[in-house]
Amino acid sequence: MARGRVKSSPNLNGAMRQALKRIRLFATDVDGVLTDGGMYYAESGDELKKFNTRDGMGIKLLQRAGLITALITQEETKLVARRGEKLAIPEIHQRVFDKLSRLRDIAARHQIALEDVAYMGDDVNDLETLQAVGFSATPADGVASVRKRVTYVCRVKGGEGAVREVADMILAAQAGSSEDLWFRTANPTVRGV
Amino acid sequence: MARGRVKSSPNLNGAMRQALKRIRLFATDVDGVLTDGGMYYAESGDELKKFNTRDGMGIKLLQRAGLITALITQEETKLVARRGEKLAIPEIHQRVFDKLSRLRDIAARHQIALEDVAYMGDDVNDLETLQAVGFSATPADGVASVRKRVTYVCRVKGGEGAVREVADMILAAQAGSSEDLWFRTANPTVRGV
Amino acid sequence: MARGRVKSSPNLNGAMRQALKRIRLFATDVDGVLTDGGMYYAESGDELKKFNTRDGMGIKLLQRAGLITALITQEETKLVARRGEKLAIPEIHQRVFDKLSRLRDIAARHQIALEDVAYMGDDVNDLETLQAVGFSATPADGVASVRKRVTYVCRVKGGEGAVREVADMILAAQAGSSEDLWFRTANPTVRGV
Amino acid sequence: MARGRVKSSPNLNGAMRQALKRIRLFATDVDGVLTDGGMYYAESGDELKKFNTRDGMGIKLLQRAGLITALITQEETKLVARRGEKLAIPEIHQRVFDKLSRLRDIAARHQIALEDVAYMGDDVNDLETLQAVGFSATPADGVASVRKRVTYVCRVKGGEGAVREVADMILAAQAGSSEDLWFRTANPTVRGV
Repeated sequence: MARGRVKSSPNLNGAMRQALKRIRLFATDVDGVLTDGGMYYAESGDELKKFNTRDGMGIKLLQRAGLITALITQEETKLVARRGEKLAIPEIHQRVFDKLSRLRDIAARHQIALEDVAYMGDDVNDLETLQAVGFSATPADGVASVRKRVTYVCRVKGGEGAVREVADMILAAQAGSSEDLWFRTANPTVRGV
Repeated sequence: MARGRVKSSPNLNGAMRQALKRIRLFATDVDGVLTDGGMYYAESGDELKKFNTRDGMGIKLLQRAGLITALITQEETKLVARRGEKLAIPEIHQRVFDKLSRLRDIAARHQIALEDVAYMGDDVNDLETLQAVGFSATPADGVASVRKRVTYVCRVKGGEGAVREVADMILAAQAGSSEDLWFRTANPTVRGV
Repeated sequence: MARGRVKSSPNLNGAMRQALKRIRLFATDVDGVLTDGGMYYAESGDELKKFNTRDGMGIKLLQRAGLITALITQEETKLVARRGEKLAIPEIHQRVFDKLSRLRDIAARHQIALEDVAYMGDDVNDLETLQAVGFSATPADGVASVRKRVTYVCRVKGGEGAVREVADMILAAQAGSSEDLWFRTANPTVRGV
Repeated sequence: MARGRVKSSPNLNGAMRQALKRIRLFATDVDGVLTDGGMYYAESGDELKKFNTRDGMGIKLLQRAGLITALITQEETKLVARRGEKLAIPEIHQRVFDKLSRLRDIAARHQIALEDVAYMGDDVNDLETLQAVGFSATPADGVASVRKRVTYVCRVKGGEGAVREVADMILAAQAGSSEDLWFRTANPTVRGV
């Protein structure tokens, strides 16, 4: 299992590629990873987050490649549930204060070892989980203590496609490329991103 | 027909200029091209996308120059319909899973050959279409497999004026410049951008 | 009157300073100057624009220095009216297709010569107006044909404080600095930015 | 007490570290510091601001370390009240035109000297307050007259984590690191960021 900070590079070194090849479950934090950390508050009482269509496609491609996908967040909003449902993510876990325990439960239910799990997070409350899995990554703007401890620091920031970047790495190690996968598996059931 | 990745440059090479001169139909994907890929989800259930006024002006200028303009997207929202209607785009196609077939239909209806079509897209589900038309382009942040295969990679990202950048190139090849066109065709009917 | 593209610089050359000293009316386009050009469309039918608090402060400081402030836009929305009212801008002109004529009317009503007017715009429909006034400016991301013709190209983009940048230049030429002006004129009537 | 513009650096010099060690009250302006200065206006009459989850975590970590946290803004919105309540900020002060007097009141009530107060602001209406406290900071895009006068200019802009940057500096001087603090104080009561 590859460890230590890896310079962002499309040419994965051997240890990283081995770690990526094993991944069967992809789990990620929401705020700051699938978003730029922005929390829009409205005078009317409404609240918004901004997701990215390319991250959405990355998650759909991981599902096509046979991976389990999961969201694990400390917050609890209907909008995250809706985004997860749009992407048909089977494991959506909100209001989670012990993320590592929850991830262990999810992995166990699917009979997947933590070595075969990839997790993305951006802040101190993700540190335990990031250090427990086979492949850990953070957006380019994850906090310093997280950037120091993950397998991979993304080139792009949260909300700019950091999840897609890692999805493409997993797919490159497992399935040739996201493009190959797209054409090999194209079917009318994968519709919203 | 020009092919291969072309360095962003205002000085179009000869082959590019020839391809641009022929364009009679301009079609584009929506998310990630006319937007930065952002999908805003609200707690209230609302959903938003952010368009760019300069892209809007680019589309209006293409219409003034006599081109057919079209939107082709896999998603389906009322807001995209509304944006398209604001810009008086005659061909708005949503919930399209086979974009190339749809574009063939549109082009045939207008008796325009695919060689005379420009198409912009940013992700793997645009690849087939991008490779079938006379001029293809992607924003600076289109995914890698798309950037490798288009005629032109924009200097700017999706939502930052990538559509305007290509519109200005088409106009420069066909009509002198967007500025000339503006003053030559100024009339009170082109109102919203 | 200074003309030609001036490199962004805090040290205004003599001709620029002379032009700035005379300014008594500050007028600006809205989309792409007071905003980043973003037009947010919501599924609910709502529409949003994003303004900048530092631009707001710039407009308030110009008013404190005795300048007339004006908005001139081709679009028509209630939200622009509301933003203008929040800033107590006395001249709010929407749905204007001949911006230069409208600006002439405003200036004449206030008995101000066009040489004593500053105007900011970012696209081809601002060109005529930009070339008619004593001081013209565009955000860093104004379109190329505009950037070529204005007195000053801002360091920052639309929505990032481009209006504040020009306001600070006017205040530096006329009133010492925006900071001096703030402390000299501080009073409880200037409240919202 | 450290004074003068300090180059952004993770290695705090001795005087800065001494100033940071004393801080018992952290107060900040809202627009342009906790946000990028953006004020979203909606056609429906709604208004939004965009906060950052990492700033939220920074404020929660300061509270865990025993500091009083405060918001002081000239504007008045329900959304700022709601954001402050989400973060359990005990001192939320809106519609404040004399920020320094208000901060003196807050500090006095908590029996904290101004030398033991940190304040963040970004514009001329923050200058008096910034110059009165023990540690002052502004985002990378604070206005020039503010950047010249604060103890510390952040590496990142308002809304991109400028408050988190300063929070991490205070925690590094007082508590080892934000990461140490997180694990030392982890408890189920600190839930929303």
